[in-house]
Amino acid sequence: VGEGTVTVIAGPCAVESPEQLMLTARAMRARGASMLRGGAFKPRTSPYSFRGLEEEGLKLLAEARAETGLPIVTEVMSEATVQLVAKYADVLQIGTRNAQNFFLLEEVALAGKPILLKRGMSSSIQEWLLAAEYILAKGNSNVIMCERGIRTFETAARNTMDINAIPLIKELSHLPVVADPSHGTGKRKLVEPVSLGMVAAGADGLILEVHPDPEHALSDGAQSLTFDIFSSVMENVAKVAAAVGKKMERSAVTA
Amino acid sequence: VGEGTVTVIAGPCAVESPEQLMLTARAMRARGASMLRGGAFKPRTSPYSFRGLEEEGLKLLAEARAETGLPIVTEVMSEATVQLVAKYADVLQIGTRNAQNFFLLEEVALAGKPILLKRGMSSSIQEWLLAAEYILAKGNSNVIMCERGIRTFETAARNTMDINAIPLIKELSHLPVVADPSHGTGKRKLVEPVSLGMVAAGADGLILEVHPDPEHALSDGAQSLTFDIFSSVMENVAKVAAAVGKKMERSAVTA
Amino acid sequence: VGEGTVTVIAGPCAVESPEQLMLTARAMRARGASMLRGGAFKPRTSPYSFRGLEEEGLKLLAEARAETGLPIVTEVMSEATVQLVAKYADVLQIGTRNAQNFFLLEEVALAGKPILLKRGMSSSIQEWLLAAEYILAKGNSNVIMCERGIRTFETAARNTMDINAIPLIKELSHLPVVADPSHGTGKRKLVEPVSLGMVAAGADGLILEVHPDPEHALSDGAQSLTFDIFSSVMENVAKVAAAVGKKMERSAVTA
Amino acid sequence: VGEGTVTVIAGPCAVESPEQLMLTARAMRARGASMLRGGAFKPRTSPYSFRGLEEEGLKLLAEARAETGLPIVTEVMSEATVQLVAKYADVLQIGTRNAQNFFLLEEVALAGKPILLKRGMSSSIQEWLLAAEYILAKGNSNVIMCERGIRTFETAARNTMDINAIPLIKELSHLPVVADPSHGTGKRKLVEPVSLGMVAAGADGLILEVHPDPEHALSDGAQSLTFDIFSSVMENVAKVAAAVGKKMERSAVTA
Repeated sequence: VGEGTVTVIAGPCAVESPEQLMLTARAMRARGASMLRGGAFKPRTSPYSFRGLEEEGLKLLAEARAETGLPIVTEVMSEATVQLVAKYADVLQIGTRNAQNFFLLEEVALAGKPILLKRGMSSSIQEWLLAAEYILAKGNSNVIMCERGIRTFETAARNTMDINAIPLIKELSHLPVVADPSHGTGKRKLVEPVSLGMVAAGADGLILEVHPDPEHALSDGAQSLTFDIFSSVMENVAKVAAAVGKKMERSAVTA
Repeated sequence: VGEGTVTVIAGPCAVESPEQLMLTARAMRARGASMLRGGAFKPRTSPYSFRGLEEEGLKLLAEARAETGLPIVTEVMSEATVQLVAKYADVLQIGTRNAQNFFLLEEVALAGKPILLKRGMSSSIQEWLLAAEYILAKGNSNVIMCERGIRTFETAARNTMDINAIPLIKELSHLPVVADPSHGTGKRKLVEPVSLGMVAAGADGLILEVHPDPEHALSDGAQSLTFDIFSSVMENVAKVAAAVGKKMERSAVTA
Repeated sequence: VGEGTVTVIAGPCAVESPEQLMLTARAMRARGASMLRGGAFKPRTSPYSFRGLEEEGLKLLAEARAETGLPIVTEVMSEATVQLVAKYADVLQIGTRNAQNFFLLEEVALAGKPILLKRGMSSSIQEWLLAAEYILAKGNSNVIMCERGIRTFETAARNTMDINAIPLIKELSHLPVVADPSHGTGKRKLVEPVSLGMVAAGADGLILEVHPDPEHALSDGAQSLTFDIFSSVMENVAKVAAAVGKKMERSAVTA
Repeated sequence: VGEGTVTVIAGPCAVESPEQLMLTARAMRARGASMLRGGAFKPRTSPYSFRGLEEEGLKLLAEARAETGLPIVTEVMSEATVQLVAKYADVLQIGTRNAQNFFLLEEVALAGKPILLKRGMSSSIQEWLLAAEYILAKGNSNVIMCERGIRTFETAARNTMDINAIPLIKELSHLPVVADPSHGTGKRKLVEPVSLGMVAAGADGLILEVHPDPEHALSDGAQSLTFDIFSSVMENVAKVAAAVGKKMERSAVTA
């Protein structure tokens, strides 16, 4: 992830079953995603919601990688499970609710893997960069910043995607920055136009929620793309990337 | 302004002098802007700030139109001056602070000119559409919606540009929607990337502040583009517009 | 309104009929309110909502004053109607949507009556004070600041009442400041505790919406108090006022 | 902490030295505080700020309790240190940045001590109650909710104290709720009026930062009270508490 290319990370919000994951992983690879995302540990507002398959989910992700070759991006929510998650994942994701969980930031830094650091839903740009500094200060410089929308008064979308954040992060740091239009909008129909916009504004990549059957997803169905819409996003993002002088990174699709 | 094209409205925040305005108007035309913006009545937070040249400013705008052929977009702040402003302007702008000044909305609707309706800085999408309804209900259907950033906790930029608003307005109405990255960011360096992003997301146009000497502007200097940066914006917006299947509308530049 | 006392302004959101207004006006006087509020011109998000009885409403307010002796506080929404409203009202209210309608602020200043200046729903303290400055600069020093809640991400209440604003306005200016817990909460059950809190924090008064039959109010029914709850508010506010060394100003009720 | 009384928790933001802590602890007891607060693990935006004395700080807190009899409230930031902190503390505090750190919430619940749960700076009332549910669901029903201000556009204070939250929490749950005007305002001069307001609105207590020499505090000096101002707060809070029919709980001060 970085200068000159656009990298797409895609997959289901949560790993739900072997079938759901494998189907999605293959579809993502066939459509050119560079990495597979999927949650085994899910931060849920209510303790009574589905909270993920935990280690079973991690194993499924590793199997999906074995079959598709796609590196795995998955969230780590707890210091106690950093080692466990790091055993399976290629990139460790810190979620928005842990964006200022400083002990977790330090622990995850030490795992020696790249970190995808989501912006806190009410973190200022400065606070977000200082959260990254907790990781950098532990000697891990592989931090990918992820703008995922901030909390504002507007309720027509789940969050307000902060497009200004992209050039601001570029100006204030040397870290790559990707965008998460799935959470930044919360609505399937908004994901494509906002994906195009974030790439045009300079985002180095996108992280997208995709599900074989969004209506029956165990979490975030309303914002998950179908495979068909994902194909359209990939095609149009490639055009916009070219227009701003970037190459779309693609998994060895045509192989 | 509308489907299939990208229209650029450009000019100084405030009309300051004949020289400043003519210089800018010629430069905007030469670089392909479709309309000239410039404030004769300026809404200022403090009563002690420069508040515009008023009718003298309107006359200068009309002269600039006579020379360049560019239609004029300028703000009307008061019911009492609607007729005066409408005498000179081609498009009447309602500013963010008057976005729910319902008597002004109705009065301006009756002037029979197209209205550029800026979103209130804390208006929800629904409130903004209902503000437009005040104009439509008076029989004026020429309303151009203008996303200019909303007020949030983030202070690294002047406002938070709401990219989600572009596809939301498209989904919920048939009105054209343009973006104002000058106010949406408040920072010169952010204007170009955010302009590209908003066009990629579907904006039908841009309204941009440009000044021959931003350091000495009487208002909004920090967010005003130089002529050179404006040229760059035009060139790159055209590329992004093409990438999303749109034509960049250009004044008959090369004529 | 000012130092050492707590003044209560009460009445219906909108003047709806002679019966509704007179019934309320008498009840407010009997329960100790110092002034009567009531809207004849109503700012409504949608043009299709009830927008007030206009001059007919102003006449009813004047009749209510004639009978009860309570001074009238009512909103003026438009430069064109400042003279009309000033003919009937004792205090001219500027609503939250016009908090930065600078021409209206200047016009209303010239009417020579005290102004109740509501804070804009996204106005900073500084912007609100500078809005007052538009009135003061025209030679009218009778400005009453009114905190009515600001717009935030929280949706459990209609607005977020900004209690910090009370001591901040006291520190930064010499203007009296009252609180509007009806709009600050939007929920009947919250009005009493928040009223007590704002007075304890130093508010010089309260402005409260009361309706003889809130369930059938034409606007803001959900936040309007019944007469009984209003009695309870008056009783408990008086106790809190005493605890912070203030006198509760009462209309010469039982006299 | 609970119905009918007002409990005051006071002490320094961070435990800095034996002298600073003992001096403050004695002063708090002499002035009637019911519990002593003080941070041994400090969540700081930057990794390069003072982050607390850690276990050494916990020991000092235990010594202060031994001398003054005041129970200790201190923050736990990490699952790995829950047992350590629980060994010394009487009440375990979850800070605003960990308000949705769900693994920490569950771990701390199991320590069997009362939990002071600060509201996330952008948590809705509903999200905050569901965070409490993570603790309750683990069988720990001793949760004290703590309103500490939310993040809004307003920058005149550090946060916007949400007074509406007090009656809302009372209406929606049976949990006690206290207010933290130190963080809710960030400014020493605002702490007293806002303390009075929050108690009048129904808060069951206050948590206040006090420092023997705020100008030289290692953290949060600008919002820390001097001992003299704290005395004034205690005196006036007692009056307001009485006015709303509550008893001020006091440590057996003069004994």
